[in-house]
Amino acid sequence: MTASALLAEVTRGVAVESRHYGALAVSDASGRLLLALGDVERPVFGRSAVKALQALPLVESGGAERFGFSDRELALACASHGGEPEHVETAAGALARLGLGVETLECGAHWPTNDAAARALAASGAGPIALHNNCSGKHAGFLCLACAMETDPAGYVEAEHPVQREVTAALEGAFGLSLADAAFGIDGCGIPTYAAPLASIARAFARFGSGEGFGPERARAARRLQQAGWSAPFEIAGTGRFDTEAMQVLNGRAFVKMGAEGVHAGALPGLGLGVAIKIDDGATRGAEAAMAAVLARFLRPEGDAATWLASRERRSLRNWAGAEVGEVRAAGELAGG
Amino acid sequence: MTASALLAEVTRGVAVESRHYGALAVSDASGRLLLALGDVERPVFGRSAVKALQALPLVESGGAERFGFSDRELALACASHGGEPEHVETAAGALARLGLGVETLECGAHWPTNDAAARALAASGAGPIALHNNCSGKHAGFLCLACAMETDPAGYVEAEHPVQREVTAALEGAFGLSLADAAFGIDGCGIPTYAAPLASIARAFARFGSGEGFGPERARAARRLQQAGWSAPFEIAGTGRFDTEAMQVLNGRAFVKMGAEGVHAGALPGLGLGVAIKIDDGATRGAEAAMAAVLARFLRPEGDAATWLASRERRSLRNWAGAEVGEVRAAGELAGG
Repeated sequence: MTASALLAEVTRGVAVESRHYGALAVSDASGRLLLALGDVERPVFGRSAVKALQALPLVESGGAERFGFSDRELALACASHGGEPEHVETAAGALARLGLGVETLECGAHWPTNDAAARALAASGAGPIALHNNCSGKHAGFLCLACAMETDPAGYVEAEHPVQREVTAALEGAFGLSLADAAFGIDGCGIPTYAAPLASIARAFARFGSGEGFGPERARAARRLQQAGWSAPFEIAGTGRFDTEAMQVLNGRAFVKMGAEGVHAGALPGLGLGVAIKIDDGATRGAEAAMAAVLARFLRPEGDAATWLASRERRSLRNWAGAEVGEVRAAGELAGG
Repeated sequence: MTASALLAEVTRGVAVESRHYGALAVSDASGRLLLALGDVERPVFGRSAVKALQALPLVESGGAERFGFSDRELALACASHGGEPEHVETAAGALARLGLGVETLECGAHWPTNDAAARALAASGAGPIALHNNCSGKHAGFLCLACAMETDPAGYVEAEHPVQREVTAALEGAFGLSLADAAFGIDGCGIPTYAAPLASIARAFARFGSGEGFGPERARAARRLQQAGWSAPFEIAGTGRFDTEAMQVLNGRAFVKMGAEGVHAGALPGLGLGVAIKIDDGATRGAEAAMAAVLARFLRPEGDAATWLASRERRSLRNWAGAEVGEVRAAGELAGG
């Protein structure tokens, strides 16, 4: 078994205080690996990093067009959003297009993950509803797919529901493998999540970005979702978040998406490459530093994009009084971009 | 170099999704190791896990007695509290005993780490002040020490201030080593933090719990702080937090304290043992599962304490709809209690 690779570390003063190990794959659409660190064949749950793949049937079915989903609504279908007012408004708008109420969302309610939004919601005297769930846009997309399929949406989170069957088939097509025997779990929002080798996830995003290996309808759907992300990057995550800022500064050059438990994936369409990262311990901060290093290495951007990537490849840690006390930085083979 | 040990893992469905490696030491006051997993000689920043050691001079100086610090105020001096109303009230009370205002605290302000408290504060229309800082009680203790030493408290967070010199000397005495050449960093609240071998931290807590290896005044101070923690466990952390619940159910049998970046330490006074844990990647959830396993193994409690420890050694993860989707559990050598 291949050992895990050091991908990021956290310093305090002159010492390394914590370390993040994991695996990282950069693949083209044929599966050729341009970079492989750690065990890229180990199956990992894609979690929210593969939401854009799960949204393919929403577009490919014609549902997004039929119900007039906007760029914002399509971007939100690929998002793990912060529950900020704009996200909530976008999710509500998507449901309105379908003529469905909030009660049809099966994702559950939680306080906005954006702290300021959570406090503002509390200050208003209200509490969270399903629209604040970071997955509400994805679920609105599932409901749209159910409407397009003219099937009863109730139970759309279940693996056996026609909606999830379509979504799983899209994942299988993108990964290039059957998930029938894959390790299976339930995601935070109630839908199934399947484990797939990290290299397959990277290859899936190479296909997603380039259309290579997809049929024409699926390739068109992938382009539509990417364009939505670049057109409305705020919907993808939110204020100060990695994916939103990356899509802003790398507009058209990278589509990136985090997932829970230290997963990060993305497409570099101009290069025909896909990236997939798993931090063994589940730390988002480690995955983000590693993703920044990979984007810098392969895209070699200049100007604002280079400055932003450098700030994420080595991210300052400040204490409550504002003094810099250390940093989170890409490490090991990724160090020194 | 000794490899790190698997201490905890996170499952989803039937699969292990994430893993936490690190080191764990259980020591007596002489330094004899009863359990050593991973590299227990590697220096680690003790962070907030050693607050009780840093509070020794507060008691030993006579300051706590002279200014009439209560059990709650002494417990808060050892705490990383959630900024809940009771914590804020206790910190304010400690400052009032000293005749000092909130502006003398040098820890900086942050929103309460307890989410409900943060939202309630926002709903009240107010914002956070230094009293909400999770370290405000420790800082009130530093101010008390400055008053007892009859030195100007300004700059009490600096390594060269008489207060921090006393605090560092107390750490050196407990660790049984000089920190003059130790790796040095700044903690989240502005004070210095020093790296010490994990085994030394475990031995320090064996001394703290038993008084062995301490002079009579320091041993008395250690007993006073432990009694304060068991008398007012809510002050140590807060609602639903590991350390508060552990001190409630193991009243008198264990004094435990977490620190940032996956550090956890504690004393088992009845057994004359100390425990220190460092999760390499900095994850609190991993340290807590490992600490629960160690407490269960060495204390062998029955009844409520056993039930609580089992619930923390294998902690259910639920999604937003309330369904169990996995667990965080002690692993490797610690598995299976």
